[in-house]
Amino acid sequence: MPYELHYWPMIQGRGEFVRLALEEAGVDYIDVARRDDDDGGIEPMLDRLADPQNPRPPFAPPFLRDGAIVIGQSAAILLYLGPRLDLVGASEPDRIWTHQLQLTIADAVDEAHDTHHPLGVGLYYADQKPEALRRAEGFRAERIPKFLGYFERVLTANGGEHLVGSTLSYADLSLFQLVAGLLYAFPKASAAALRDTPHVARLHEAVAQRPRIAAYLASDRRIPFNEDGIFRRYPELDG
Amino acid sequence: MPYELHYWPMIQGRGEFVRLALEEAGVDYIDVARRDDDDGGIEPMLDRLADPQNPRPPFAPPFLRDGAIVIGQSAAILLYLGPRLDLVGASEPDRIWTHQLQLTIADAVDEAHDTHHPLGVGLYYADQKPEALRRAEGFRAERIPKFLGYFERVLTANGGEHLVGSTLSYADLSLFQLVAGLLYAFPKASAAALRDTPHVARLHEAVAQRPRIAAYLASDRRIPFNEDGIFRRYPELDG
Repeated sequence: MPYELHYWPMIQGRGEFVRLALEEAGVDYIDVARRDDDDGGIEPMLDRLADPQNPRPPFAPPFLRDGAIVIGQSAAILLYLGPRLDLVGASEPDRIWTHQLQLTIADAVDEAHDTHHPLGVGLYYADQKPEALRRAEGFRAERIPKFLGYFERVLTANGGEHLVGSTLSYADLSLFQLVAGLLYAFPKASAAALRDTPHVARLHEAVAQRPRIAAYLASDRRIPFNEDGIFRRYPELDG
Repeated sequence: MPYELHYWPMIQGRGEFVRLALEEAGVDYIDVARRDDDDGGIEPMLDRLADPQNPRPPFAPPFLRDGAIVIGQSAAILLYLGPRLDLVGASEPDRIWTHQLQLTIADAVDEAHDTHHPLGVGLYYADQKPEALRRAEGFRAERIPKFLGYFERVLTANGGEHLVGSTLSYADLSLFQLVAGLLYAFPKASAAALRDTPHVARLHEAVAQRPRIAAYLASDRRIPFNEDGIFRRYPELDG
């Protein structure tokens, strides 16, 4: 039975970290809300989210269904998929460390999101633009260099090519996605930060060239970045 | 060798989720930055954070040292400690589900923090007060009820007493802490939300009455809530 991913069909968002893992592994999966037949669309996703029969409901998309088990929270989904897709080491220290990196990537993603929604998700960007300008300033000046500098330190200590061990892990895929998103949303600030973090820049390029990832990125399964997602190109926020 | 917790000594913060697990388990641990001898204080914590010999450094406090292993990210620390402290079920589905709940609690904690720092951590509260007022409005009206309502649904489906299975897990301890923090920071809004989520309210009371937790809360090991932490009592933000 293929994995069933449930996520908003119009954005990469947090679902993309799961998609990249499934794509790199080359496994069969259904992107439920993007199907255009009777079994697909947003409605089955929302029905499953609210399913009163499920005693372990996810809080929000993305969530993954694998037979009888339903898992929400992108980091928890990757914790579950990692060993199954051979995208994490076998030892407990490797698994915890990979997960720790994933959680730090998720923190960076949250902060990137908050640059355009500092006052919360209940208001439009247009209603919080002055606040967004102030929040983005600190994100560009302090946070992008701090996060990328941290991953540079980790890569350097590990030989430069992978975050964990000597093979690809889901954390590498997620770091690729973080960098891709930052380059989309903050092209000037991110390019500047990447000049100081050459291993991070190279990992981003190397992941993009992996055969299955390259095929995925060129396909229509990869939703283009857009201004409904987490990473939004509002030039005024790039300084 | 006792566990060594590293976290800012003046606030509960994200370290508190780890402290509660260690206290409930009754294990020996050292709260490194709170020691006042030569081996304690903030300096050894910052030294270990920046340790060039550690190829797997944490990004930020809290982090836990257990012999040769160092783990950052509070949710990852609990993932590691859960089985060791008997605060999570033995099956993989139970462990993933408990972790998923922890990550959702962490999301709520992040949003509580952002009510007083909507423009980022680089500015003081006094410099972002009008923005904080706007952000807190949505948090009180929409987010507190949504998060507590979700945990009420989970508790109800599981018999009312625990979030997972029939025994205490680290997610129960963390939900206690979330509720305690919300009641401190937003006493009016939280009391109103808890009237609609009676199982959540009872879990908060039941955890506070567990012998080891009650002893901990009454001790000076429990740092009082204060206006440097995540949960801050700024009456203007409670509506």
